[in-house]
Amino acid sequence: MSATFDQTFQANKDRFVSEWTELLEFPSIGADPERDKDCSNCAEWLRRHLTNLGLKSWIQETSGKPLVMAERKGKEGKPTVLIYGHYDVQPVDPIEDWTTPPFEPEVRDGRLYARGAEDNKGQIFYVVKALEALIEHDALDCTVKILFEGEEECGGSQGITEFIKTGTDDLKADILMVTDVCRVTSNEPTIIMGLRGIISLGITLKGADYDLHSGMHGGIAPNPATGIARLITSLHREDGSIAVEGFEDDARAVSEKETELAATTTFDAANYAAMIGVAPVAGEKAFTPVERVGFRPTVEVNGVHSGYGGPGGKTIIPSEASAKISCRLVAGQEPETVLELVCKHLTKHAPEGLVMEISDKVIGGHALRVDSETEPVHIATQALAKVTGQKPVFYYEGASIPIIPSLSAAAGADPVLVGFGSDEGRAHAPNESFAIDDFRLGFLYACEFLSSL
Amino acid sequence: MSATFDQTFQANKDRFVSEWTELLEFPSIGADPERDKDCSNCAEWLRRHLTNLGLKSWIQETSGKPLVMAERKGKEGKPTVLIYGHYDVQPVDPIEDWTTPPFEPEVRDGRLYARGAEDNKGQIFYVVKALEALIEHDALDCTVKILFEGEEECGGSQGITEFIKTGTDDLKADILMVTDVCRVTSNEPTIIMGLRGIISLGITLKGADYDLHSGMHGGIAPNPATGIARLITSLHREDGSIAVEGFEDDARAVSEKETELAATTTFDAANYAAMIGVAPVAGEKAFTPVERVGFRPTVEVNGVHSGYGGPGGKTIIPSEASAKISCRLVAGQEPETVLELVCKHLTKHAPEGLVMEISDKVIGGHALRVDSETEPVHIATQALAKVTGQKPVFYYEGASIPIIPSLSAAAGADPVLVGFGSDEGRAHAPNESFAIDDFRLGFLYACEFLSSL
Repeated sequence: MSATFDQTFQANKDRFVSEWTELLEFPSIGADPERDKDCSNCAEWLRRHLTNLGLKSWIQETSGKPLVMAERKGKEGKPTVLIYGHYDVQPVDPIEDWTTPPFEPEVRDGRLYARGAEDNKGQIFYVVKALEALIEHDALDCTVKILFEGEEECGGSQGITEFIKTGTDDLKADILMVTDVCRVTSNEPTIIMGLRGIISLGITLKGADYDLHSGMHGGIAPNPATGIARLITSLHREDGSIAVEGFEDDARAVSEKETELAATTTFDAANYAAMIGVAPVAGEKAFTPVERVGFRPTVEVNGVHSGYGGPGGKTIIPSEASAKISCRLVAGQEPETVLELVCKHLTKHAPEGLVMEISDKVIGGHALRVDSETEPVHIATQALAKVTGQKPVFYYEGASIPIIPSLSAAAGADPVLVGFGSDEGRAHAPNESFAIDDFRLGFLYACEFLSSL
Repeated sequence: MSATFDQTFQANKDRFVSEWTELLEFPSIGADPERDKDCSNCAEWLRRHLTNLGLKSWIQETSGKPLVMAERKGKEGKPTVLIYGHYDVQPVDPIEDWTTPPFEPEVRDGRLYARGAEDNKGQIFYVVKALEALIEHDALDCTVKILFEGEEECGGSQGITEFIKTGTDDLKADILMVTDVCRVTSNEPTIIMGLRGIISLGITLKGADYDLHSGMHGGIAPNPATGIARLITSLHREDGSIAVEGFEDDARAVSEKETELAATTTFDAANYAAMIGVAPVAGEKAFTPVERVGFRPTVEVNGVHSGYGGPGGKTIIPSEASAKISCRLVAGQEPETVLELVCKHLTKHAPEGLVMEISDKVIGGHALRVDSETEPVHIATQALAKVTGQKPVFYYEGASIPIIPSLSAAAGADPVLVGFGSDEGRAHAPNESFAIDDFRLGFLYACEFLSSL
């Protein structure tokens, strides 16, 4: 079957790239209110495109950006697949670093350059083109539902969250197909077996009414800079583990099978250090780097600021200090509970004499751990192997897509996360791109996966 | 004698204020290179003024700002007093906060408002006027030497430091008289019995080449923000004492007499909290607040910065973190040795995987501890009591005037630090002022002190 689909791809490649280019020309930057109309236009373009393929499609308005929804009934007794993706893209700053303008797509050396080329327009569009090919070849037996949102890169998928509360029947499915992910490296077909959850918060410590003379007050006035440092230090033990009481109590144990699957991903410490400029030495020594990213929660300081930061010195005791903290969670941890535990810890360890305020509390979402024994994972594994000729690796991702666990739960669907992004694609950065060969792989994988159901 | 001097003051008050105003009109901001000429003009004005009083006076050029020097030989067998002060003033920013322009002195409610009104022009000028009165009344038996510098508020008294190396004979004296200090409160005549020394440095921790995604890298990439927090935390023990090995090894023990003198200063914790907005709970519980400021060294964080500090959150692992540290030292501690010990501690505790750089190392100067049993301190105590009708308090100052210990050593002179500044005067801040009544007290004290020698 793969050969047939590849022939279809080759025969239609130019048209596919041309349509994909059209989709990329919408400057659908989710975070920019001035681009709201562009987002709506992009959503409408997708809706019309899906209608033209023979799907029943409609726009679901939300208090935020519209959802693109579509459905195509399959044969009796066949499963229902809910295909998730997003049409909004990241901002383009710093614009001066782009070789060609972000919304004027250009092919160079086999890669299509544009904002959203990969994340996520490229990866939703190869699925759309796969649906077209499957329908053409009468190879689409399952029922397909589509849900493309416009608030993944901003506002935390508020539209879907709203919709889940009111209209879950439209979302009911057996399988949740997600392509908004990457491969471990561009040479390794990858099945993402987990995502971490996330919470975040801000801390402020207030001391004196103004910056004090460090001589006249040094030794009596409590120092918020020292205070915030001690507070941050209190969050971890010497061995790198998290010192917040009860933090991991609900974390689900990692099964032997999961440990085994995680071991399919190799991790080269020297290569990591060369690529990003720092050795992968953080976290708990009792776990491998792959396990630390996939199976271990974190408490990270995203920023800390207090007092003087200019050239030379200034002999003050700062009047205030602040920090931003985010935690990645693993399966089993309740974001709300963990956030409470962190706040309790901070309150308990708040330095004497300073006034602590906790702000910007965000419950991002739960972690996701994919059940490796589900039929969809087996089918995805086979489809990937068939398309790439390689044995896929299984990766427990350290990042979060907060909507996936709740969407999976609302739909009652087993998630399958396979995408063809890679570091070379520079998602979120200037000069984002996606290789046309990877678009082809994604197309072939989607054809194989959906036709095998 | 006091009554006579007071009559002289009252008879000449308007002229004194008028001359003092003239001195304040020079915008002699030491830190501003564009004011170099104003500094030289101010120095020359002072030199001429001293000549007119009958002193032999001259300008000592340095690689920085000129020194104003003068001498008047006293009677055989009488001591020599070196009078130290500075004619440079602090910058005037924020200029918009001044009620009247900083270099257009104005008297309001018995206070003269101008930059330098107190610090230090006001406090050197009452000594100059005391010399005038003493000469007029033929009551100046001791030999007087004058050294007014123009680099106290900037550049760390480089000119004097240079001069000490080459021409110490001009500075030889028995007593070093310093007025560049304040009273504990405006109701308490105060003898400053100590100053702390100072060193400072900057720390940078470098991690990855760029800010990392806290999900993809959290648990493997070391976090410079967490690292700098742990480094800062390592500097103190739980009880607030300094954890740097050997830090206090050379600190001189506090004598019973010193403890007794320090106890003459009362410290009202509730009042402190009300005034500056924070309770005086820092430092080691084993010492009183007065002892902690006067007799204990400190390690203070003057600033710490890393990662995101804007609104909301940003899920990054920052690529870098930096901190500014300054330490106040006590008698016995060698600034150079202590700086080395701090660097050694930081190197020992540098977080794994991050690159630490130590920068901006500054050896500010030694601490000063005044010998309470010297003749000059006894005479100053009596003079203060006579002039104010109150028993003076003895205060061990937490701030530093780095040049005083070296000048005292170079001159071979016992220091006596008495000034009439107070918090109300807002030295260094907008709307600096000095009460004319305090100018009078300073004048009377200087007359009493110098005529008693």
